[in-house]
Amino acid sequence: MALLVQKYGGTSVGSIERIEAVADKVGAYRDQGNDMVVVVSAMSGETNRLIELARQIDPKARGRELDVLLTTGEQVTIALLTMALEKRGYPARSYTGGQVKIVTDSAHNKARIKSINHEKIVGDLNNGKIVVVAGFQGVDEFDNITTLGRGGSDTTGVALAAALKADECQIFTDVDGVYTTDPRVEPEARRLDSITFEEMLEMASLGSKVLQIRAVEFAQKYKVPLRVLSSFTEGEGTLITTEYGAEKTVEQALVSGIAFNRDEAQLTIAGVSDTPGIAYQILGPISDANIEVDMIVQNVSAEGDTDFTFTVHRNDFETAFASLKETAKKLKAREVTGNNRIVKLSLVGVGMRSHAGIASRMFQILANEGINIQMISTSEIKISVVIDEKYLELGVRALHEGFDLKTES
Amino acid sequence: MALLVQKYGGTSVGSIERIEAVADKVGAYRDQGNDMVVVVSAMSGETNRLIELARQIDPKARGRELDVLLTTGEQVTIALLTMALEKRGYPARSYTGGQVKIVTDSAHNKARIKSINHEKIVGDLNNGKIVVVAGFQGVDEFDNITTLGRGGSDTTGVALAAALKADECQIFTDVDGVYTTDPRVEPEARRLDSITFEEMLEMASLGSKVLQIRAVEFAQKYKVPLRVLSSFTEGEGTLITTEYGAEKTVEQALVSGIAFNRDEAQLTIAGVSDTPGIAYQILGPISDANIEVDMIVQNVSAEGDTDFTFTVHRNDFETAFASLKETAKKLKAREVTGNNRIVKLSLVGVGMRSHAGIASRMFQILANEGINIQMISTSEIKISVVIDEKYLELGVRALHEGFDLKTES
Repeated sequence: MALLVQKYGGTSVGSIERIEAVADKVGAYRDQGNDMVVVVSAMSGETNRLIELARQIDPKARGRELDVLLTTGEQVTIALLTMALEKRGYPARSYTGGQVKIVTDSAHNKARIKSINHEKIVGDLNNGKIVVVAGFQGVDEFDNITTLGRGGSDTTGVALAAALKADECQIFTDVDGVYTTDPRVEPEARRLDSITFEEMLEMASLGSKVLQIRAVEFAQKYKVPLRVLSSFTEGEGTLITTEYGAEKTVEQALVSGIAFNRDEAQLTIAGVSDTPGIAYQILGPISDANIEVDMIVQNVSAEGDTDFTFTVHRNDFETAFASLKETAKKLKAREVTGNNRIVKLSLVGVGMRSHAGIASRMFQILANEGINIQMISTSEIKISVVIDEKYLELGVRALHEGFDLKTES
Repeated sequence: MALLVQKYGGTSVGSIERIEAVADKVGAYRDQGNDMVVVVSAMSGETNRLIELARQIDPKARGRELDVLLTTGEQVTIALLTMALEKRGYPARSYTGGQVKIVTDSAHNKARIKSINHEKIVGDLNNGKIVVVAGFQGVDEFDNITTLGRGGSDTTGVALAAALKADECQIFTDVDGVYTTDPRVEPEARRLDSITFEEMLEMASLGSKVLQIRAVEFAQKYKVPLRVLSSFTEGEGTLITTEYGAEKTVEQALVSGIAFNRDEAQLTIAGVSDTPGIAYQILGPISDANIEVDMIVQNVSAEGDTDFTFTVHRNDFETAFASLKETAKKLKAREVTGNNRIVKLSLVGVGMRSHAGIASRMFQILANEGINIQMISTSEIKISVVIDEKYLELGVRALHEGFDLKTES
């Protein structure tokens, strides 16, 4: 007997057959005596179909009307899933974001949730109903329809779980949990039974696209236990929880996983004077061009001036390179170099906090394989290195083996 | 400078190209200085697509969740049309029924409008915005999404025009107005410049499916001038207004038009005793079988008993006939006869009220063509006859010619 909030993504509800399968699954949880709130996305392909309609009218379509358009996608799914539940004899009721109501700010296309009125949902649950809620959407204080941006359905699920003080928020997706690394690169990658929010955030932001970062942050902030499971196979999935909770259930591993990101490119401006404000002078124009910067490293060079290196998304490489050349002229820098054949590889684990020597062991493992490290950046629970892209798979496998990740610790 | 409420049906917004064309048309009216409120239906085919999805889950899908599903159709259109208007530089804003808000009763799939809050729309109009509203939909007092039933977008248009005290409600459709009769039967049929609400109601209920009956009734009740125009061609269309208004603009014709209905079938139960309650005993079982009865005629026969004749939709003929046979046994009636090869043909015109002799002229015209009349029914502004279906076209043309309808009166 628990209150569960479950979220099913677009692939999980991508056809009538799959919606029927979700109804079966939700019904089985209900039969076990759980109170059920189900958040759904638009059927896979539907959001893109709607965006394509909008683009035919205005290639730059955005703002209020795009939200009015896109939110129909989830509205279709909640109606169909609720019908499927009712057909099976489960009393059920659907709600759009506006009906709940989920109040957001007025930032169309990327709104943030401000409050949730859970009155109607609690009333329905008390009456034995399964509640089906449209993910990704809300209304602002003037009743304008808003969306939370792509992947916002995860956030809806977590926010509802927080508002309802649910026992668990379960995110059903097409993978059966969080792995020590990408199984396509390392076949011996192992599903983690549990992981902390902080580790998950580092894994997610590094390209393990299992969960939306905002949803994880939200869950962490409101201490909502979050579980990632597969819509298509049975299994316990991975529980994402506070460090304390994770430590209670498993002996904390030094390293939880290895994340990587193939979409990076590296730029260096060498020989600029090491004066206050120099970082802003270099990165200001990059930011003005709407380019996001990921890693930033600054070295003092022998000549008393400094070398400044950063990474951007590979798609932004040409633009960033051109912009940096301009900046170099103004700053009378020695040279600008770039490399868009690099990848970032990161070791993640809360155990790093209390254990020294993990960084040097990482560097040793890579060195043993002849992999040159071009850039290093560390945080409390993460060590990231930039290496040549051709060494990605080798590096991941060597670290996975070296830190013994295939065995449960 | 007027306040116009325009409604565009599914065919008029059936593709991106057509939505762009509607935006051009609406923009042109706006350029003339009019305040514009635009009501739109779902893109043609969309409602059927959604119904098909629902039927795959539950062939009997109806009620609350079907409304949640179907209302997405108009929501897509309002967003796209508003984008198209904004692209052309017209400030515009879309509203779902719930956002307006259009409050209905809770009769899902066939709700009736109870009230309209016009505050937001008036605010937007005062700010120079074009307002785009989703037809066919509303919310009940608990914020549940409701629909007005098929064709309900016309009703939304008229109800908004009434609430806003609009100068005119313009219904854009795929015909360019109301004709004296169906031009496919009588090529000399003429578009009427104006017609009264009562005449339009008689024409509509007799099968001239230009406008939804409920919308006309609504317009009549709230004295909203209603105009039917083509989305695809230029022209003044047909103004539907109160008798008074119509008389001011045109010399009232004796007969405005000839309507007909091919979907009728006739049933007679002969030789029943002429006692109180006999009509109910005959029609009760028909009504219990959910069959709608149209014309009803009762004759006293020579033997002191009575013959009772009525018409039903041709699809219901077999069921009604079987039911009537049962009734005949109970009532010891002489016989039951039926004919499903008949049509109803009606002369409509408010002029009939003040002019005698129209009925006899009608009968004479039909007699001259050798057309036998099987049943007659009259109202204040209408004379209907039932004739053999093979005489339909001949009868329509003879009456059109006989009452000189091709010439503007």
